[in-house]
Amino acid sequence: MLKVGIIGAGRIGRVHSESISKYVKGAEIKAISDVRITDELTTWAKSMGIPHVYDDYKQILQDPEIDAVLVCSSTNTHAPISIEAALAGKHVFCEKPVDADPARIHEVLAAVEKAGVKFQVGFNRRFDHNFKAIKDRVAAGDIGEPHVIRVTSRDPDAPPIEYVKVSGGMFFDMTIHDFDMIRYLSGSEVEEVFAVGTVLVNPEIGKAGDIDTAVITLKLKNGAIGVIDNSRKAAYGYDQRAEVFGSKGAIHITNDTGSTAVFSGENGVIAEKPKYFFLERYMQSFADEISCFVDSVVNDKPTLVNGNDGLQPVLIALAAKKSLEENRPVKLSEVA
Amino acid sequence: MLKVGIIGAGRIGRVHSESISKYVKGAEIKAISDVRITDELTTWAKSMGIPHVYDDYKQILQDPEIDAVLVCSSTNTHAPISIEAALAGKHVFCEKPVDADPARIHEVLAAVEKAGVKFQVGFNRRFDHNFKAIKDRVAAGDIGEPHVIRVTSRDPDAPPIEYVKVSGGMFFDMTIHDFDMIRYLSGSEVEEVFAVGTVLVNPEIGKAGDIDTAVITLKLKNGAIGVIDNSRKAAYGYDQRAEVFGSKGAIHITNDTGSTAVFSGENGVIAEKPKYFFLERYMQSFADEISCFVDSVVNDKPTLVNGNDGLQPVLIALAAKKSLEENRPVKLSEVA
Amino acid sequence: MLKVGIIGAGRIGRVHSESISKYVKGAEIKAISDVRITDELTTWAKSMGIPHVYDDYKQILQDPEIDAVLVCSSTNTHAPISIEAALAGKHVFCEKPVDADPARIHEVLAAVEKAGVKFQVGFNRRFDHNFKAIKDRVAAGDIGEPHVIRVTSRDPDAPPIEYVKVSGGMFFDMTIHDFDMIRYLSGSEVEEVFAVGTVLVNPEIGKAGDIDTAVITLKLKNGAIGVIDNSRKAAYGYDQRAEVFGSKGAIHITNDTGSTAVFSGENGVIAEKPKYFFLERYMQSFADEISCFVDSVVNDKPTLVNGNDGLQPVLIALAAKKSLEENRPVKLSEVA
Amino acid sequence: MLKVGIIGAGRIGRVHSESISKYVKGAEIKAISDVRITDELTTWAKSMGIPHVYDDYKQILQDPEIDAVLVCSSTNTHAPISIEAALAGKHVFCEKPVDADPARIHEVLAAVEKAGVKFQVGFNRRFDHNFKAIKDRVAAGDIGEPHVIRVTSRDPDAPPIEYVKVSGGMFFDMTIHDFDMIRYLSGSEVEEVFAVGTVLVNPEIGKAGDIDTAVITLKLKNGAIGVIDNSRKAAYGYDQRAEVFGSKGAIHITNDTGSTAVFSGENGVIAEKPKYFFLERYMQSFADEISCFVDSVVNDKPTLVNGNDGLQPVLIALAAKKSLEENRPVKLSEVA
Repeated sequence: MLKVGIIGAGRIGRVHSESISKYVKGAEIKAISDVRITDELTTWAKSMGIPHVYDDYKQILQDPEIDAVLVCSSTNTHAPISIEAALAGKHVFCEKPVDADPARIHEVLAAVEKAGVKFQVGFNRRFDHNFKAIKDRVAAGDIGEPHVIRVTSRDPDAPPIEYVKVSGGMFFDMTIHDFDMIRYLSGSEVEEVFAVGTVLVNPEIGKAGDIDTAVITLKLKNGAIGVIDNSRKAAYGYDQRAEVFGSKGAIHITNDTGSTAVFSGENGVIAEKPKYFFLERYMQSFADEISCFVDSVVNDKPTLVNGNDGLQPVLIALAAKKSLEENRPVKLSEVA
Repeated sequence: MLKVGIIGAGRIGRVHSESISKYVKGAEIKAISDVRITDELTTWAKSMGIPHVYDDYKQILQDPEIDAVLVCSSTNTHAPISIEAALAGKHVFCEKPVDADPARIHEVLAAVEKAGVKFQVGFNRRFDHNFKAIKDRVAAGDIGEPHVIRVTSRDPDAPPIEYVKVSGGMFFDMTIHDFDMIRYLSGSEVEEVFAVGTVLVNPEIGKAGDIDTAVITLKLKNGAIGVIDNSRKAAYGYDQRAEVFGSKGAIHITNDTGSTAVFSGENGVIAEKPKYFFLERYMQSFADEISCFVDSVVNDKPTLVNGNDGLQPVLIALAAKKSLEENRPVKLSEVA
Repeated sequence: MLKVGIIGAGRIGRVHSESISKYVKGAEIKAISDVRITDELTTWAKSMGIPHVYDDYKQILQDPEIDAVLVCSSTNTHAPISIEAALAGKHVFCEKPVDADPARIHEVLAAVEKAGVKFQVGFNRRFDHNFKAIKDRVAAGDIGEPHVIRVTSRDPDAPPIEYVKVSGGMFFDMTIHDFDMIRYLSGSEVEEVFAVGTVLVNPEIGKAGDIDTAVITLKLKNGAIGVIDNSRKAAYGYDQRAEVFGSKGAIHITNDTGSTAVFSGENGVIAEKPKYFFLERYMQSFADEISCFVDSVVNDKPTLVNGNDGLQPVLIALAAKKSLEENRPVKLSEVA
Repeated sequence: MLKVGIIGAGRIGRVHSESISKYVKGAEIKAISDVRITDELTTWAKSMGIPHVYDDYKQILQDPEIDAVLVCSSTNTHAPISIEAALAGKHVFCEKPVDADPARIHEVLAAVEKAGVKFQVGFNRRFDHNFKAIKDRVAAGDIGEPHVIRVTSRDPDAPPIEYVKVSGGMFFDMTIHDFDMIRYLSGSEVEEVFAVGTVLVNPEIGKAGDIDTAVITLKLKNGAIGVIDNSRKAAYGYDQRAEVFGSKGAIHITNDTGSTAVFSGENGVIAEKPKYFFLERYMQSFADEISCFVDSVVNDKPTLVNGNDGLQPVLIALAAKKSLEENRPVKLSEVA
């Protein structure tokens, strides 16, 4: 039984807590920490069966019984806490993005390597049944050589402006998953990025210095072309589709719905909207990524989302940001 | 160039006229007849390029240049006119049903056989792209031995009560196509029929002695089971689906729509309703059945919908009617 | 925390054990019993965290800490054990069918009523997301008055002949779920049944006195018509579809798949087969039916699948069997 | 009855001839010309009922009975023949592209304006039922303000290398339709283009100086973003899809198929591939664009695809070509 500590009791920290309690065999949560301990948090932790709640993550790192930590704190602390955890000999599961600065990511990677601990980054969509189905087909050679990889990723609604201001921008906060998906589905690194972005959903987002609508084209090292289209708000909900087109065919996924029910009436033939947002849509993948991490630790296997997988999407996001600012294609080598 | 005469200028007579003018190569309409000649009819015939309009179909039968006739007059005249046409040496395309009385159908079949003319019955759906796609798969052996054949057939709206009163009943007017389809898709004759029918759409239909909703189960000679469900009114339009399930798989068809467009919005993911009714849905099949008839005549081939194909659905309809009246399964041998 | 005991550690007993351990909040399993205790069972029970394993269900009934039991033993013991459990003051969740003899079901219902305990029958499909989506739409009045209710239910493969011999026949073993579904979706009792059944999948099934393919037509008290088609073996897997057609429209469900992935290649546009069988397809519903049962017990609410819901499908199955034997429609009043 | 002459009896000239003969009311073909008269052509023209076959298009222009011409000759002659036809007082339907040089297109537009004749360009997809369904929804405001317009356009196979060499390049030969579609669906002009293109289908195409795979991003004047992905060869056939995503929802179209039949078997649930290529897929639109042209001429209405609609896609193609060569976004003003 792997004993884990969770650092950060915000939304994603609680998602992992719940999925570990319910679905992850072979792991149990010994402690959770957060900078703000409230009665609500204490009550919630008790209901989850988590024995300890700390206001300092160092208490988790100092507990010799805890084998591994999940770093779910605010983004700017991901890197230093990961390093500290590695030094304490804990295996590390770190939420995305590891950091916005490639240099600091390299420091993290050096630290975990030196410590000889496992390191996995929270790109949960790789564990989603739909994206895995594409990947499996591509890996099996069914579509031949990949030519074009398309990802459509639209949120059901824009986050609050206060969040937008500290999010690091849409490319780091939202598109980062799509950058990872292009790499995952194509099996190739990205060479050059061209981004078009604009503000069409909410002018306040523009005032906060960000964009809400974008199309990003990516030249891949294997010769294929990737293309992502993003929006912060789709009236019909969370739109999560992808397609890989290759020499022998194509494979695409459509959205998951709550049921397969279709109503036929005077106004048309009406199917359900997609599942609302990432909690509804990706719950299974959150459980599976942790199960996989637990398996890597317990059986000493390489993690399925490794350090480089943490680094590359950040480089792509930096290139996309530069491309948007300078209205020109930008090579990853320019930002590495 | 095969010269044809059309007997009856009602809806189906005009459908055939239009499709011959536009789509049927190798045939031209020399004359059309109707018991009621109006200015509107004359103008319409001119616009179709039909040289002659007669108020007596005998004028068509007497024209030695006319090779073949389409019997599109009222149902009770199908049999006598077909016999008369055969005696006049004309090839006969006869609308469905040939007659409600099997004895009279046998007379027609005897007459056309004696005259050595071609005889085809207007079960146009056999020529429809969707139903043909099922048939081709079944014939190719892809589903193995057929086990269950299902036909769903619902009209967008009930016909006027005045029509209901003279239609011969839903089984003869509407389900007759589905009875034919069960035979066509299964490749088997029907042995026994059990019909459940009721009035749920419009009580006036019940007062007129008919039903508007039915489920009919058919035992087939090859051991398979057929099942048809009918309604005179589907709020979402003309519902024309079928499935053949067998030992190696199943094949089903869904409705045709005007476009493949799908709208995703706050109220769901909305596709188009089916094409409105039989003119919109089956126009191509009307043209193809006549092309096929022309080919049979010109190249002396057997027709694809022959005399027995005209007889059997009428026997099934009679058995279904008797089953409904007596609330018991009825063998075709009881009504033959 | 409701303490439950599980009587019978066969397939369905273990399904409930797993789903309670993983997904059902507010309940814990204190003991499981089976007539055959093996090392494998003991090990499995330990892995599930079940403290006690008994070879006599009476030990469960005698434990005053146990509030409720799940009767998952062989079908012929459902009724006597349910009665015994009620007498012992335990709330009862009983697997389907309660019994093949209506008289014994009435005894069970009398016993639970007298004891004042909750009684729920294991028609799990009512808790399935797809079937619930239909029911909710129907209940909301979206399709108006129901006219035709169709259920397609095909297994991926026939059970072993040894099982067929003791199963009570396809109507009691398999179609019983579909009989329940017709009642659930239509909101109406069944009045009369006509069944056509045959042996097309495996002649051994016929030798064992059963059928493997059937179409059953049901006249409902509210005037609607139900129709079920069954097969013991669909080459493409577990086919679980339904449609309710009514005055204002129709709602249908299609099969669930492992992913939404669609491959387009030289051989066509290929989607996944349905989820393999009932464990894969209905796992969520097994958990939800128990959660619902727990809620009924804890909060003293009526159960959502009550005693009459256990009785009626058995009456329908008896009528269907008689109909098949006598080749005539059979009223439920004839078998009640 | 509008009398038309067809200049050029290659593939597209014959497509128009056939569709006019069969489907276009109110027009008849008086003559067809081609630089190469063969026996095959003469026979074919007779079968189409075309009275005159000329080896010099000037004979068509000199015929005072001919009201309008269809310019279906080789691309480099589109402009001069259109000008000559306008001077001869003929209404002009000109195949796409009008010319690869914007200056010559301007000359054509000046000539037709001066002559006061109608001018329509052959962007037939605007008349396709699927693309029209998107356009109608967008025009009705159902999706609100357009944000992202996506067009996927893949051919079933690359053209012969000899054709590639004289085609003017993929952007002028194939993508030109997609450029038009972005304008049509968005209702906006294009401001700037960024093209990524590569050779993945056939290296011979690269040796001939062209590309076979491309993703093109377009900034539109109304603030929306367009994105096109192209391939010269999709293993599953002609892939013609589009989506407009906007503030209130999205509308997308999928491919047309020969039938709606779906086969379920051991290998999956298999639908048909798209209709093979443009003749199968777009026949209805070829007829409708000419019917519309005839209507414009006869009833003196503006044509639905006017001179500017002929010019803009050429400017976009020039910008895309320059973008590809220089690996940077190119404004249309740079190539106008």
